[in-house]
Amino acid sequence: MRLHSYFRSSTSYRARIALNLKGLDYETVTHHLRKGEQRAADYLALNPQGLVPALEVDGMVIPQSLAIIDYLEERKPDPALLPADLPGRARVRGIAYALACDVHPLNNLRVLSYLADPLGHDQPTVATWFRHWCVVELNALETRLAREPETGSFCHGETPTLADVCLVPQIRNGQRFDVDMAPYPTLQRIYDRCMTFDAFVRAAPENQPDAE
Amino acid sequence: MRLHSYFRSSTSYRARIALNLKGLDYETVTHHLRKGEQRAADYLALNPQGLVPALEVDGMVIPQSLAIIDYLEERKPDPALLPADLPGRARVRGIAYALACDVHPLNNLRVLSYLADPLGHDQPTVATWFRHWCVVELNALETRLAREPETGSFCHGETPTLADVCLVPQIRNGQRFDVDMAPYPTLQRIYDRCMTFDAFVRAAPENQPDAE
Repeated sequence: MRLHSYFRSSTSYRARIALNLKGLDYETVTHHLRKGEQRAADYLALNPQGLVPALEVDGMVIPQSLAIIDYLEERKPDPALLPADLPGRARVRGIAYALACDVHPLNNLRVLSYLADPLGHDQPTVATWFRHWCVVELNALETRLAREPETGSFCHGETPTLADVCLVPQIRNGQRFDVDMAPYPTLQRIYDRCMTFDAFVRAAPENQPDAE
Repeated sequence: MRLHSYFRSSTSYRARIALNLKGLDYETVTHHLRKGEQRAADYLALNPQGLVPALEVDGMVIPQSLAIIDYLEERKPDPALLPADLPGRARVRGIAYALACDVHPLNNLRVLSYLADPLGHDQPTVATWFRHWCVVELNALETRLAREPETGSFCHGETPTLADVCLVPQIRNGQRFDVDMAPYPTLQRIYDRCMTFDAFVRAAPENQPDAE
């Protein structure tokens, strides 16, 4: 397996955590997003979206972190990243997709770059944008996780799930923009618990071959 | 089942298509997003994200359109919205998530509103933003679908899948901002084919109880 990745990409981070939790070996192919390497012709031939991550596996190229994780979950079900029960799976997916669809897309590099140019916003305004969408979602998520009995040491129960795989990179991303975590004790507790796992630590940006 | 919805919400549109394709009856509860009804206390108690759609089913509240569709797929597998084979499922999910994670989140009402206020952009600039993200993704998707042999009458083969469930509302959304579909003959052909299905037509914004 070859994972096309960028150390600071939080969607690549998700894929790395899932691969590590599943105990799967993979080769990392790095693409420097700030230098535009993801738009090189040979990578576009592989993945027309020109985004990372993408996983080369079993003769296919799978783009999209969530599609990669779904694939890994079905190809190597153990350890499971989704609960065995249908209500549990719905809960975990609802948390994961809230992070993956309602926070991260607004705060990735290409969007922040567009706010700077052509829209002409300065760095403090871009940082305010980042924190706005992050805080809106973390508020909602803290409310849910703090009140729901299914929350355990992790977002759902006592083992890491897809929800944690999405939460950890989002919190890490927020740290870069000084998002205050004090209002989110449940999320912080879960983040800290995840970071006691080697699978999460090895996937972190600073432990990638292209880390700066 | 009760679906919390807004006629023009393209994520609600996805959920409506999936419910219809599965042949499931449901009651629609409307929330007028422009009037902020999704932030009413009683709805926030149900869904702390304050977004639509959310599905009340089996004593649960499931937020997030993709989580709703996953739930429906597992609860009523026939007709299937995902292919039976693992590579096919990965392909369909890759297409669906590209639309759900890389286009729609940038172009929904709350984001366009933020561009206008506080960021102060006029309507033409907001419309340019909308078309920019839409066109970037439709370009990539047209490239994929036009060249890949798995593409059929629909995004994947000869029956509607999760990919079509995400594609149709996105194209419909693009029409509101005058996205030129001429460069996307494959996507337009698939859209037209879907719209020969009653399940897609009944789910369309103009056929909702809160349509304006």
